[in-house]
Amino acid sequence: MNAMLEAATLARDVRSGRLTPTDVAERCAAAIEASEAEIRAFATLDLAALRAAAGRPGLDAMPLAGLPVGVKDIIDTADLPTERGSPLFAGYRPTSDASIVRMLARAGGLLAGKTVTTEFAFMQPSPTRNPRRSSHTPGGSSAGSAAAVAAGMLPLALGTQTGGSIIRPASFCGVTGFKPSFKLLPVLGLKPFAWSLDTLGLFAARVADVAFAMSALTGRDLALDADAPAPRFAVVKTARAAQASDDAHAALEMAAHAAARAGAQVVELELPAEVEAGDAASGIVQAYEAALAFADEWDRHRDQLSPTLATYLEEAQRTAPEQYDAARRTSRRARNALADTLHGFDAVLSFSAPGEAPAGYATTGSPVFNRLWTLAGTPCINVAGLTGATGLPIGVQVIGRFARDKTVLNAAHFLERAIAEHGVGGS
Amino acid sequence: MNAMLEAATLARDVRSGRLTPTDVAERCAAAIEASEAEIRAFATLDLAALRAAAGRPGLDAMPLAGLPVGVKDIIDTADLPTERGSPLFAGYRPTSDASIVRMLARAGGLLAGKTVTTEFAFMQPSPTRNPRRSSHTPGGSSAGSAAAVAAGMLPLALGTQTGGSIIRPASFCGVTGFKPSFKLLPVLGLKPFAWSLDTLGLFAARVADVAFAMSALTGRDLALDADAPAPRFAVVKTARAAQASDDAHAALEMAAHAAARAGAQVVELELPAEVEAGDAASGIVQAYEAALAFADEWDRHRDQLSPTLATYLEEAQRTAPEQYDAARRTSRRARNALADTLHGFDAVLSFSAPGEAPAGYATTGSPVFNRLWTLAGTPCINVAGLTGATGLPIGVQVIGRFARDKTVLNAAHFLERAIAEHGVGGS
Repeated sequence: MNAMLEAATLARDVRSGRLTPTDVAERCAAAIEASEAEIRAFATLDLAALRAAAGRPGLDAMPLAGLPVGVKDIIDTADLPTERGSPLFAGYRPTSDASIVRMLARAGGLLAGKTVTTEFAFMQPSPTRNPRRSSHTPGGSSAGSAAAVAAGMLPLALGTQTGGSIIRPASFCGVTGFKPSFKLLPVLGLKPFAWSLDTLGLFAARVADVAFAMSALTGRDLALDADAPAPRFAVVKTARAAQASDDAHAALEMAAHAAARAGAQVVELELPAEVEAGDAASGIVQAYEAALAFADEWDRHRDQLSPTLATYLEEAQRTAPEQYDAARRTSRRARNALADTLHGFDAVLSFSAPGEAPAGYATTGSPVFNRLWTLAGTPCINVAGLTGATGLPIGVQVIGRFARDKTVLNAAHFLERAIAEHGVGGS
Repeated sequence: MNAMLEAATLARDVRSGRLTPTDVAERCAAAIEASEAEIRAFATLDLAALRAAAGRPGLDAMPLAGLPVGVKDIIDTADLPTERGSPLFAGYRPTSDASIVRMLARAGGLLAGKTVTTEFAFMQPSPTRNPRRSSHTPGGSSAGSAAAVAAGMLPLALGTQTGGSIIRPASFCGVTGFKPSFKLLPVLGLKPFAWSLDTLGLFAARVADVAFAMSALTGRDLALDADAPAPRFAVVKTARAAQASDDAHAALEMAAHAAARAGAQVVELELPAEVEAGDAASGIVQAYEAALAFADEWDRHRDQLSPTLATYLEEAQRTAPEQYDAARRTSRRARNALADTLHGFDAVLSFSAPGEAPAGYATTGSPVFNRLWTLAGTPCINVAGLTGATGLPIGVQVIGRFARDKTVLNAAHFLERAIAEHGVGGS
């Protein structure tokens, strides 16, 4: 397989004149031509348009320096179809770009193609294969984005997470996946699933690449600090720890050990019941909001929904407003209690997923270790570098406090280096 | 002019068999045919479709009993064009209904037409005239919805408010306008302006009609309580009181006096500085989010924006993320401080607008008495019944605590009766 493309390094090379945007586009095109037939990461691909765009003058001076970017097919693009993983939207062309697509363009990123999403970013498996072992799922719902980065086809790709749709595929595919604080990136022009949970984020090779891309996209200072102090980590296994496999436990312990050896403060922490209650609440919030988000599809096109989604929505309709209101109150208390709990810590260290990517394609895996943090709106990163019993990637998740995205990026970068230096050969 | 159509009464008459949905549709059609040429409340109208829909069996047993509803043209409808008040979307047909349009259909409401919105629900005046005096603005941005209800053309109409786009036109047109708690009604399928502020609400003749429609639409218990206790009102003039005209002050005092005479507790209250700071913050939040919400229109179709909107967006682009983040922190503190301040009160009584509708059509009036409450996400109602110096309506605004929509509806109903009984002939 192709090596992963490192966005920060490529952009630096373009800015210094060592590479041109066309060189980068051709590198992507070559990897796509080599791997796409097997991986099937793209819903729509227009390499001719990418090559034409890469030739535009001035890209090298722009923040993203003409890097090709994959855009999850749940995100509206005026220049490419937006099929949302559903036959209902086959060939659909939105009139406008989503806000994030304009932000990409303004920053000098190039639209490389639309990456495969599961149907409406829910649980029905997609055709995408895991580049680390093509007999295994890449996870979901941002399957194509995670796979395209893992397969070295793209340096950057956008994804979304309502349950665990960024962190889980990142863990399964062995890439960095970043879910920023809730609403740090605008979701306008995305097909909604649950408006209190839907979060836009991105995939890249390494933590430095994510930090670079987030800064370039938003104009915020989210760059890594060379002199950031060693982070204070709280290791949190959650009330669902029994659902993590032995090798997921081993990976988390190895990561904690590596961080401690590298000088981090590492403390085991149990979440108070008020925080843990957010996990169950997230299911109710998601169901109530999804029933409204898919009201049109349910009322007018039910026969074109997968059984997976139709069954979910049928049940979701039965969520009463009073249940929803109670779940939102539980959510608010969980967020506040989490903020109190994490006082004195820079980040949480936890599972990204229950283990390696499941074999086969019948499931996209479980968001059981993601839902609580999505509900909390806190920034989350999957840090790659460790592997499980069969040699597939197992990521660890670094979770920050709300709106402290820079802190969590620095903590994840610290952990990534610690794993590279201290984590290999253990367990 | 036609008398206003009272939704709750019409629905009761349909349910009891005194009227059929066709009778109601014909009453609307007659009023529309009599007044629309002058008022211009509709962007799209399909009376044939309304008549056909009204003949469908079973409507009389549904919550909205086949009442015709106007839908602001910023809201997606699959069956009618959705032009958003902009030449950019002339003839645009969305693929899906907005969630609220499905909720209407599920509740047995009939799509009567799309009501005029100002361009993208911003400040550029629309062609709609004020039914109370057609030489005056109906306000904006929900101009057509307010005017259609005021002119007796429809018993119900949907509107949206980002600054003051429900309460202000309701005040100018002398109808009841209700902005529920933030996100009580889903905004999926609406063209966003500022995602932290955009709120969906509705217009009807009287408070009882709004309470009826909200219950019917949402399945929540938002019905008026016959035995609700007399409310405890805080009269709040805000730091912007000097911008209210003498007759707006007189109307507010008359409303407070009428409420007190009817048995309410009425206390003058000054907002703490932390709450008042939300007003300035709302401008920054709106600007930053609008710059992203209109990124596509700005980048690709700038020549088709009005000078009003283009000038606003040009300035809005310059809002730095740090200013936005600071404004969001200010907003959060304002919300929390407001909740503390209102402890012990059922509702605030304040200005709906600076005075009567301005003469002419050069402006849609000022949202100066609305922005703070929109930012706070609190339920707000314009209560009609009083008039200003030239005889045009001047509403008073009843504002509740967040998520206490039923309480504020009851308080507004109390005030409406008090004004009818005690408020006439004073001042």
